[in-house]
Amino acid sequence: MLKNMQSGRKQPHAVKPGELALGEVALLKQIRARAAKLSSGTAHGGLRLGIGDDCALLRVGPGEELAVTTDLSISGHHFRLEWHSPESIGHRTLARGLSDLAAMGARPVAAFLSLGLAKELIQNQKKRWLEQFLDGFFALAGTFQTQLAGGDLAESAVVVADIVLAGAVRRGKALLRSGARPGDLLYVTGTLGGSAAGLARLAQLAARAHAARSGALRVAPLRIPGNLQSLLAPHLYPQPRIAQGLWLAQRGLASAAIDLSDGLSTDLAHLCEESAVAAEIDAAALPVHSGATLEQALNGGEDYELLFTASPAAHVPRSIVGVPVTRIGRIVRPRKGRPRITLVTAQGRQPLARQGWEHFS
Amino acid sequence: MLKNMQSGRKQPHAVKPGELALGEVALLKQIRARAAKLSSGTAHGGLRLGIGDDCALLRVGPGEELAVTTDLSISGHHFRLEWHSPESIGHRTLARGLSDLAAMGARPVAAFLSLGLAKELIQNQKKRWLEQFLDGFFALAGTFQTQLAGGDLAESAVVVADIVLAGAVRRGKALLRSGARPGDLLYVTGTLGGSAAGLARLAQLAARAHAARSGALRVAPLRIPGNLQSLLAPHLYPQPRIAQGLWLAQRGLASAAIDLSDGLSTDLAHLCEESAVAAEIDAAALPVHSGATLEQALNGGEDYELLFTASPAAHVPRSIVGVPVTRIGRIVRPRKGRPRITLVTAQGRQPLARQGWEHFS
Repeated sequence: MLKNMQSGRKQPHAVKPGELALGEVALLKQIRARAAKLSSGTAHGGLRLGIGDDCALLRVGPGEELAVTTDLSISGHHFRLEWHSPESIGHRTLARGLSDLAAMGARPVAAFLSLGLAKELIQNQKKRWLEQFLDGFFALAGTFQTQLAGGDLAESAVVVADIVLAGAVRRGKALLRSGARPGDLLYVTGTLGGSAAGLARLAQLAARAHAARSGALRVAPLRIPGNLQSLLAPHLYPQPRIAQGLWLAQRGLASAAIDLSDGLSTDLAHLCEESAVAAEIDAAALPVHSGATLEQALNGGEDYELLFTASPAAHVPRSIVGVPVTRIGRIVRPRKGRPRITLVTAQGRQPLARQGWEHFS
Repeated sequence: MLKNMQSGRKQPHAVKPGELALGEVALLKQIRARAAKLSSGTAHGGLRLGIGDDCALLRVGPGEELAVTTDLSISGHHFRLEWHSPESIGHRTLARGLSDLAAMGARPVAAFLSLGLAKELIQNQKKRWLEQFLDGFFALAGTFQTQLAGGDLAESAVVVADIVLAGAVRRGKALLRSGARPGDLLYVTGTLGGSAAGLARLAQLAARAHAARSGALRVAPLRIPGNLQSLLAPHLYPQPRIAQGLWLAQRGLASAAIDLSDGLSTDLAHLCEESAVAAEIDAAALPVHSGATLEQALNGGEDYELLFTASPAAHVPRSIVGVPVTRIGRIVRPRKGRPRITLVTAQGRQPLARQGWEHFS
């Protein structure tokens, strides 16, 4: 209820008067209270009216426009309940949306969270799954002063988390995918492949745990040994590059930008398509994450680093707000019969196909 | 891909190079093309950058703010694949969000659609489920000049449709739930209970079809006989009251407003809670939809009419932009021990409990 953190009307119409402790109304009150707590501790950005009405109301400054993005996560596809802790799923849900704002150079203003949950996930008497999900969600929201301004809650056979992020950006200053020009140089923040390497390790752990239980179904998420926490952090708790995106947008330094969610090979292809250009990557220059392979760095995805282009005349520093920046290649003129992306190695040149996952294929 | 109508990164990382005709990239291109077609035929509202980048960019006028709402629909809960045609599900998905904008008095600017779909739904060779869903979606979007500005697509065991609507409203002029005062009169647009009556009829049809097939599972949606189309229209194709909401907001006539998605008994309770008031409904005054019962009018939900309050001094007309307006009761001071909502009938007064569905209870 408590729209706009609401319950929609369900089919078929059933009559369930009264509010149980674990019912929807109680859950929404709990979420609203947590959002209000966060709100009182942070600057209000452009959120004028949050949870409680039919819509939230956002304001942006006279010289600003609003960047809006939405990302759908579904259990069994974007995460696994038996691999990922609820805190990690909450963090990752919000991180996906924040990373899109970072790629536009926008300042986070408000988030909207639509959650579909199985009844079982909130009915045990221990600290409930939803509470832990919110722990992960609000911890990251606090870091980036992002208000939870609304959303929706429903019962669902699979876990569904759709996140909407709204951010403010100065008019005409947003980092677009479409601005790259032949001759521009190609840069990336941080390191690549760390998330894929972490995921591979997680899969190993899960396989062992599964074998140890002789095939019994695991419902509780894996326990991660302490010595593996940092190895898995890039996958379980990726850090969106909000500060770096803002830095680039304020200085007008980047000609184009995108965040690395699907993997370098796929996301660079998106940037090239929208800019109508081609690109070359120097394999030796790639900042491969310690413990990751070149293949994971190229195709792994979910690193949530920024990939951007800049004119050769631009002075791009070696690090932005504490995060290293690496030059990894260049933008070239597209030519018929030439691959969109070429990987340049000591052995020569080879086309780099987009290796991202595609649904429904 | 084609962010911001995007595919997120999935678990586990699989490598599927190439783009098949029915693959995700092809589907997203198809949706983008349909959105562009709609865009070329309508005014652009405040959408500066639509599908194709990390975020959409929205602009509002200097004296405006942005209203944002999100509504999650899940198969088996908000609709049934074997009852509702894909066109109806597409229409209803968008109508839910538009109705929230109407309840704020906002002008639609942009929609974002996140869809989780089972592979089977888009793989038969006939006109595909997704195309028909989009037929219903874009028909309504065209009526209300609503641009599809982005969204997300993923594979899912259940059908998930999360809709985000952004609209513009003059600063300080939004219709809020919180402005009702004791003495205000209570109004509703259109008629009540038509959706619930239609749903009941749909359930009957489904039961008969099920019996006729001696228990075989129906996957294709029900065929609706021609003579029932108009009876079921309020349920299958509800009309959001955008024009009426705009009219009320422009004139500053309503002290509070909400849309009737959960049913009068529940939504009036929300309005009263946010305004810290109580209310009385005159049962005899209710504009019960032809063929619907009083119970359906009070608790049915999904009528998507506007419920609003206005000072007794305000001149509220009998119809707004062609839709009848009926006075159905009044706002009163809340008192301890007195019910939040009282139903006044010829037989006397009785408390009206909120009868809306609650998840997880």
